[in-house]
Amino acid sequence: MDKYLDMVEYPQDLKKLNQKQLQCLCEEIRELLINTVSKSGGHLAGNLGVVELTVALHRVLDMPTDKIVWDVGHQSYVHKILTGRADRLSTLRQMDGLCGFCNPKESEYDITYTGHASASLSAAAGLAEAREINGDNYEIAAVIGDGAFTGGLAFEALNNIGNLKSKMLIILNDNEMSIAENVGAFSAFLSRARTNKKYTSSKRKIVEKLKNMPHGGEKLMRILHKIKKRIKSAVAPNMLFEQFGITYLGPVNGHNIADMEEIFSRALLLDEPVLVHVITKKGKGYEPAEKLPQVYHGVGPFEKETGMVSGKQGSYSEVFGRKLCSLAQNNQKIIAVTPAMTAGSGLKLFSEKFSQRLYDVGIAEGYAVTFAGGIAAGGAVPVAAIYSSFLQRAYDNIIHDVALGNYHVVFAVDRAGLVAGDGATHQGLFDISYLTSIPNMTLLSPSSYSELEEMLDYAVNIHEGPIAIRYPRGKQKIDIDNGKFSLSSAKVVKEGSDVTIVAEGQSVSIALAAQKVLSEKGISAEIIDVRTVKPLDYDTIFLSANKTGKLYSIEENLKRGGMGEMIAAEAKLRNMSFKAYVKAIEDEFIPHGSISELNEKYGFTPQSVASEIERVFEFEAKA
Amino acid sequence: MDKYLDMVEYPQDLKKLNQKQLQCLCEEIRELLINTVSKSGGHLAGNLGVVELTVALHRVLDMPTDKIVWDVGHQSYVHKILTGRADRLSTLRQMDGLCGFCNPKESEYDITYTGHASASLSAAAGLAEAREINGDNYEIAAVIGDGAFTGGLAFEALNNIGNLKSKMLIILNDNEMSIAENVGAFSAFLSRARTNKKYTSSKRKIVEKLKNMPHGGEKLMRILHKIKKRIKSAVAPNMLFEQFGITYLGPVNGHNIADMEEIFSRALLLDEPVLVHVITKKGKGYEPAEKLPQVYHGVGPFEKETGMVSGKQGSYSEVFGRKLCSLAQNNQKIIAVTPAMTAGSGLKLFSEKFSQRLYDVGIAEGYAVTFAGGIAAGGAVPVAAIYSSFLQRAYDNIIHDVALGNYHVVFAVDRAGLVAGDGATHQGLFDISYLTSIPNMTLLSPSSYSELEEMLDYAVNIHEGPIAIRYPRGKQKIDIDNGKFSLSSAKVVKEGSDVTIVAEGQSVSIALAAQKVLSEKGISAEIIDVRTVKPLDYDTIFLSANKTGKLYSIEENLKRGGMGEMIAAEAKLRNMSFKAYVKAIEDEFIPHGSISELNEKYGFTPQSVASEIERVFEFEAKA
Repeated sequence: MDKYLDMVEYPQDLKKLNQKQLQCLCEEIRELLINTVSKSGGHLAGNLGVVELTVALHRVLDMPTDKIVWDVGHQSYVHKILTGRADRLSTLRQMDGLCGFCNPKESEYDITYTGHASASLSAAAGLAEAREINGDNYEIAAVIGDGAFTGGLAFEALNNIGNLKSKMLIILNDNEMSIAENVGAFSAFLSRARTNKKYTSSKRKIVEKLKNMPHGGEKLMRILHKIKKRIKSAVAPNMLFEQFGITYLGPVNGHNIADMEEIFSRALLLDEPVLVHVITKKGKGYEPAEKLPQVYHGVGPFEKETGMVSGKQGSYSEVFGRKLCSLAQNNQKIIAVTPAMTAGSGLKLFSEKFSQRLYDVGIAEGYAVTFAGGIAAGGAVPVAAIYSSFLQRAYDNIIHDVALGNYHVVFAVDRAGLVAGDGATHQGLFDISYLTSIPNMTLLSPSSYSELEEMLDYAVNIHEGPIAIRYPRGKQKIDIDNGKFSLSSAKVVKEGSDVTIVAEGQSVSIALAAQKVLSEKGISAEIIDVRTVKPLDYDTIFLSANKTGKLYSIEENLKRGGMGEMIAAEAKLRNMSFKAYVKAIEDEFIPHGSISELNEKYGFTPQSVASEIERVFEFEAKA
Repeated sequence: MDKYLDMVEYPQDLKKLNQKQLQCLCEEIRELLINTVSKSGGHLAGNLGVVELTVALHRVLDMPTDKIVWDVGHQSYVHKILTGRADRLSTLRQMDGLCGFCNPKESEYDITYTGHASASLSAAAGLAEAREINGDNYEIAAVIGDGAFTGGLAFEALNNIGNLKSKMLIILNDNEMSIAENVGAFSAFLSRARTNKKYTSSKRKIVEKLKNMPHGGEKLMRILHKIKKRIKSAVAPNMLFEQFGITYLGPVNGHNIADMEEIFSRALLLDEPVLVHVITKKGKGYEPAEKLPQVYHGVGPFEKETGMVSGKQGSYSEVFGRKLCSLAQNNQKIIAVTPAMTAGSGLKLFSEKFSQRLYDVGIAEGYAVTFAGGIAAGGAVPVAAIYSSFLQRAYDNIIHDVALGNYHVVFAVDRAGLVAGDGATHQGLFDISYLTSIPNMTLLSPSSYSELEEMLDYAVNIHEGPIAIRYPRGKQKIDIDNGKFSLSSAKVVKEGSDVTIVAEGQSVSIALAAQKVLSEKGISAEIIDVRTVKPLDYDTIFLSANKTGKLYSIEENLKRGGMGEMIAAEAKLRNMSFKAYVKAIEDEFIPHGSISELNEKYGFTPQSVASEIERVFEFEAKA
């Protein structure tokens, strides 16, 4: 059925096809992408946009000897299809299936582990220098989207690459939109660059005119002035890159394989870093995705024929966004800041209602946080909405530009804890460790929507100094109402006598369910919702643990530096005699899988928690 | 004696002086700077370079209503002198004295807490938006050096500032050299910008020529072509900023107050972000500093008359650099990477011997680490030398671009633990917390030069995966030889029976000295040098603690997430019965002071450790 796709298993097979056949192949690839992602969910629009680009690149290069570094890697599905993984595409983002990003463990055709934006140029620069020192002789290509250029890391790399002058092919995949609509001056710059061809023709016209005109001084001067102005605007587009010492070629149509092959080959003839500006259309070839590229950037399963995406019925993000709107109604000083996560973090409604008070700063987490620090220093109340795994990128900005000045910045840390399909790079498993070690920082963790609302109210209107609220992706698991929030007040949500389970956030629901399982076995568990992770309410925790003699803590974070370790250490230092056990993520990176698969595998289910409690506290003997 | 300085206590006093008097004032300020820093040490060259700039800025602005955000803040001494702190300048960098950077707690004229580079524009952008929402109406100026522009954070800010268009005065203090010689394409770009005036005159010449010549088609075309080329190179300088949507003015002579006042005033007439390019000379007015600006960037006390800087007689940095040279001699794959810390991290010798294998990437910690990850992925062995407090800026790069791929990158983490005069922003007190929570990461801490050498050898030649070695600024305190290093093998360096002291790095010397103090009181302490902080050698530690019944751990890191907490938690989880106490830095930022003052204040002296041990383990009762 897939006439050409069946002929192409590895990149070298591409070289046997002619341009017409390649076009047919691209059709087949698009079909495969749409079929697969409509079932598995994943990154669709971006991949539809790079079908021809990926084909052209693989025809010019000779992988795996040559290397392609994909920025972020969400657009590497086509690359996966063309490098021996087409038959496994249906396993995408599922446990033990293909990773939704690049992963060298999966294939020698994947060069770096990816998932976070703007890193490709830096990694490629490193490869280039290693190639040098090893006396190797392969080509290196980095494919980076226009959106990733809002990240400072990309500019740090440009600055060094332009200086080192090592050979490298940089492909700017300009789809005029990254995750969200692009923001910032760089985006405007690219718009100008896209119209570059206009200049060429208008310059030609002027020169023609000049040749044919009677030569008069004044008129000539006017024309010269015109030329200068035109040259100035024409020179501009490529100048940005050339000012960094990088040769610029393009723009080229990213859906014309032959054109791209030609320009890539031309670029590779130069023994220096060359940037080729490729214009692609996100969602290309699938109408719903072309029309709504943002929706189809990262998407859940959808109806292929109609493009109907199953609506999301509530999430922590949505509750956060709605609550922030109601708070902003009454507090004119609230300003929302987010690095390219307006929709993802639930700020869509806020962006409509308070467009003047929302700053989507592009993929630039460091800036988002330092900017928020400046806002707080200036006397307004910034709420920075950033996913846990991306807030990592602003660790020092939190320390240096927020905590040091004890500024009142509210961090809405979305996607904390285990996340599904995206895998290792997107797990929110570090934030308890890296946030609690920062002086002046307060960390809250709600176990339900209503608790998130209460906490946000507290954080915005009552708290002084930096404060973070971590909450998971998706929906609440229990509808628990702990009432008005006050700092450092852990809550006994279920009384018991045999063992104390201390839980944070999402884990509270697991603890409550485990309590039922234990109860059936005659074990009475007392459940504590810590609510405040820093500063912990040790009094409540130890009062319970001293009563039950056994303390089991559970959290969706790494064990190292996490909440359980904090409690266990404090218990030791206070010479407490109860037994303690810490349930958390061990010292490893957690791959992709569904949430239920991950919970199962890593022991975050009521059953496994109950069995673990029985085992480690030797209830079995008793039973 | 200081005729004009005595007349100027606050910025408004500047406005009473005429240009000639201001010049005299600048002389007096320079004299005060040189006198002060020759005794206290500190940042000299940068401050000598901005004397006139600071005066001009304060004459045009109206502080404290208006705000100046100094990038890094090491060049804010003149600002301090002019804002009521001249009489306290002699207390600079000393405990309870003036901070060497900006600090709002010190003065309302200091707007943000600073110390790390490239953040000023982001913070200023935040201030500008807060001004907007609060309906305030003040001016905001950010002063940023050319060196800080190698940091991606500056570009993230440019991208957003150019988009927001909020009024702001950006002063690019271009002294053609930051901490070290500037690297990268941006630096080359500025060089071109500096010669901007050349264009103006040569263009004028061409136009004159054109007016006077007989008009011939061919010749005209050639001239047009020339003009185009000239225009292209002339347009280039300001284009970079203008492509970001920011109006560029300059360059202006940074030692001519009147010229600067004029251009600053002109910039402030525009209701938008304007960048003024100011050319200054680092070290201006003090010959030794003009000649060797790198040496006088941050300098210890020196002889004012001769400029003689007291030579440093050995340091961990020096030992690191020397050892790395000897390892690089035998291992051709070793590549050193450092973000603008070549001299500071002891790589001067390496840069001379192996210039092709040293990459000073400018102030760009994120890039340095991701680049190193790329080098490792390409099969060479990168050694990244970065101070502890600056490595914080690459936290996610370590996770995403190094640890996730388990790449063999060696991190030489200099300035770990307490550092002297620089204060809160430069303390290396987070690295145990943030490095040990990263999967795949190994962390070593040498207690002497020879141990550092052994560890570096191990890290480079034997270890697989990411590994960090943390060591303090300055000299070794003990000359201990623990022999060949092997991973996770803590060493009992002194046997004892009453209490176990577990120490890392520099703290081992304190522990050994405390052991003597305790011994005089009849208390026998066993001292363990952990050597490997992650993974800890629990067997050795617990064997000793079970024997003595008391475990005291000491480390130069925050308690939260630190080594002691790790040990205490593990002891609790293993149900150990010995008593435990953790000595570390409590949950606060540590200000500047001399090392002995800081050690005294925070209890890192043998006496205080000994007394603490007596107290917490109730030896007093026994004695």
